Amino acid sequence: MAAQHDTYTALVNQPLGKRIAASLGLPQPAVLRRYQPGQVLVEGSVLVLGDSHAADETAAILLDWDVDVRRQPAPADRYGAVVACYDDAGTPADLSATTLQLGSVQRQLARCARVITVFRDPEASTVPAVRAARRGVEGMTRSLAHEMRRGSTANGLVLGKDTALSSAGATGALRFLLSSKSAFVSGQFVPVTAEAGEIPADWEKPLAGKVAVVTGAARGIGAAIAETLHRDGATVVGVDVPAAGQALAGVVNRLSGTALQLDITAADAGRRILTHCAERHGRLDIVVHNAGITRDRKLANMDAARWDSVIAVNIESQLAMNRAFLEASGQGIASGQLRIASLASTSGIAGNAGQTNYAASKAGVMGMVSATATEMAAVGGTINAVAPGFIETEMTARIPVATREIGRRLNSLQQGGQPVDVAEAIAFLVSDAAGGTSGQTLRVCGQGLMGA
Amino acid sequence: MAAQHDTYTALVNQPLGKRIAASLGLPQPAVLRRYQPGQVLVEGSVLVLGDSHAADETAAILLDWDVDVRRQPAPADRYGAVVACYDDAGTPADLSATTLQLGSVQRQLARCARVITVFRDPEASTVPAVRAARRGVEGMTRSLAHEMRRGSTANGLVLGKDTALSSAGATGALRFLLSSKSAFVSGQFVPVTAEAGEIPADWEKPLAGKVAVVTGAARGIGAAIAETLHRDGATVVGVDVPAAGQALAGVVNRLSGTALQLDITAADAGRRILTHCAERHGRLDIVVHNAGITRDRKLANMDAARWDSVIAVNIESQLAMNRAFLEASGQGIASGQLRIASLASTSGIAGNAGQTNYAASKAGVMGMVSATATEMAAVGGTINAVAPGFIETEMTARIPVATREIGRRLNSLQQGGQPVDVAEAIAFLVSDAAGGTSGQTLRVCGQGLMGA
Repeated sequence: MAAQHDTYTALVNQPLGKRIAASLGLPQPAVLRRYQPGQVLVEGSVLVLGDSHAADETAAILLDWDVDVRRQPAPADRYGAVVACYDDAGTPADLSATTLQLGSVQRQLARCARVITVFRDPEASTVPAVRAARRGVEGMTRSLAHEMRRGSTANGLVLGKDTALSSAGATGALRFLLSSKSAFVSGQFVPVTAEAGEIPADWEKPLAGKVAVVTGAARGIGAAIAETLHRDGATVVGVDVPAAGQALAGVVNRLSGTALQLDITAADAGRRILTHCAERHGRLDIVVHNAGITRDRKLANMDAARWDSVIAVNIESQLAMNRAFLEASGQGIASGQLRIASLASTSGIAGNAGQTNYAASKAGVMGMVSATATEMAAVGGTINAVAPGFIETEMTARIPVATREIGRRLNSLQQGGQPVDVAEAIAFLVSDAAGGTSGQTLRVCGQGLMGA
Repeated sequence: MAAQHDTYTALVNQPLGKRIAASLGLPQPAVLRRYQPGQVLVEGSVLVLGDSHAADETAAILLDWDVDVRRQPAPADRYGAVVACYDDAGTPADLSATTLQLGSVQRQLARCARVITVFRDPEASTVPAVRAARRGVEGMTRSLAHEMRRGSTANGLVLGKDTALSSAGATGALRFLLSSKSAFVSGQFVPVTAEAGEIPADWEKPLAGKVAVVTGAARGIGAAIAETLHRDGATVVGVDVPAAGQALAGVVNRLSGTALQLDITAADAGRRILTHCAERHGRLDIVVHNAGITRDRKLANMDAARWDSVIAVNIESQLAMNRAFLEASGQGIASGQLRIASLASTSGIAGNAGQTNYAASKAGVMGMVSATATEMAAVGGTINAVAPGFIETEMTARIPVATREIGRRLNSLQQGGQPVDVAEAIAFLVSDAAGGTSGQTLRVCGQGLMGA
């Protein structure tokens, strides 16, 4: 699948283009570092700030990964990442020392560097000063993400009440946020609220031995997800409508997977997926609900066909399929540790003119994910969503050029994301290393300005 | 207090300016209808959609308020408001009929009309389809708010698990959202989760007999809050630093209130407020934490003085004062039904470059409010926050013109709000009619595009 082209970003990353953009005050998006097999986790050393237990654990984990760890800022150091630990903050005044240290090293950050703040779930404390301090870290992190330059990002890792940073889930989230797999994730928070998950035997093949279903796999983001899950070791079952059969066959053949032509709104869609996986692969571990449609109209011009089809395809189908998977979970085919991931959208968070139907369906997906997490936990599984912002696809390539240029730049990284950026977030969330995270929606939007 | 001037909005609301703006495709912000004593609640009839219990209750309440209520759309009708009730939605497909009816009457909405969706708290159900349906209403409402024109708004009224629309708190929220007091509130949700609150004897004087403390009352939004609470019947105690003593005296003398010169970061600030209210007024019912400062710098250039002073003034002071008020509540001076409201900021929600300290403090305020709600409930009180977006004040008047023009237009109403818009939201939240709402943050931002 060819990546869509962003001519402007290519231009301003050449010497002449860079000078012109700088002199005119134009956006200067960086070429983001993206994951390649065998790539070093972080380029440069990693500074761990804070005197807390999580800081000590972070340093130990990083040493175990052969990362060059520093515990004190030094003027000559160049940092690929800074992990700022606030897990012992008891009142907003406690944020000062670590934050000022974090500020003092901002100019020593490498290109595409990572800032990760570590703190505990604000909702896990009922003490006003404690919750204020934790929310304060969120506000600081979001602001800092707006200030990052040269492809660097700032995100938060949020630990549950008693969740240790050394737990598998927190370790997995730390690695995702440090890595180039989170290239287009900024200003976001990954909550790890359960001491669950499992460190993979091989970080390069975290999905080895798994069977993964991807709906809407024939093209675009779905095809990128299929490719990424395959890269990570999974056997992929591509699902799409019969009309996309040829494109679907092309994708799954390339990945040595299997294809299932299916209308996901059919009453027996879940059952047919289960049967296909049983007969062809003998198991089912991962489901990615990627298939979705848009039928845009302002509400004043909305007809029943447009409204109902978007709701049926984007949300009702997932509710019905999940019921089938949950009923089968642990019995026969479906894995006892089923991991489900759904595609939401920033439109479902912020709303969007012309998309009352689409936004309702995608907000619905986020509600479904948060409510289904409890049932999934009962069978040892997880469910999460990814909400993409502006992603460069064949669909966005058809947007008129001026609108597209604006859409692309309205985020802190000043560029659209690639389908693989969404796929990396999905691949992380369906891995056992993300087992401590469930019911959540992770935005992959470069800290898009539009929000609720 | 003079309202700040928005020349552009004035211009495009004159015949020639309107034609020029239309032909050039420029923003055409409407002059918003704002509250005046004696004003009719809604201009035009109100259409109540849905066959649910809440719809019937809404119609009964509106009839009681002498509103011209309709239960079926009619092509010749002109609506000042539409209330769309989704409280019985059990799955996303259930949203269709009411939403398509809502769409069919969009062109019959009057200037500065209101759309209010009524649904139950998504978190109050653990059933995936139910929570998906309720979140779906949120996504639809947010999108519709983006589509509203001519000063009209769309907001949601969110009922708790068993909260009746006929409860005092829900009735109060319905009235606020219908009224011109919510002129600059759009794309927002008011949760009413407790069967608490009290309908005022006189909707024109909902704060009659109350004593209200307003910090930072000498100017700007604080002065507008003081004036609005006075208009609603409260006796106002204006608090500000000694350096603002003359301006403060001007405000409180005009309102027949009293002044208290005080540094809110002093350890005994809460105690001094309690003593002042006891000695001068014999009671204390309402506290509005409005005082706040900015000390903007990128984090790379942040010094301890800037960081610490913003945290101390904007959040630590409120935490300390609230402890004093809670200790005194019900004993001696502080009212057994103390109502607290704090000023947050959309910067605390979305983050803002150059404001790591301010955003941390304002996110902290929202965390404090949500955590303190439990303690307040124990003494029969409430605590909430208001997060203003771009408001026309002396402060924003000093922003360079181009930046100010952009800041003003980046919301669905395409204009900055007035200080009184923030004050109306505060006056609502500290009234007994808002007694069913606690721990919440209400944005007053015209559905500002920037969000988390």
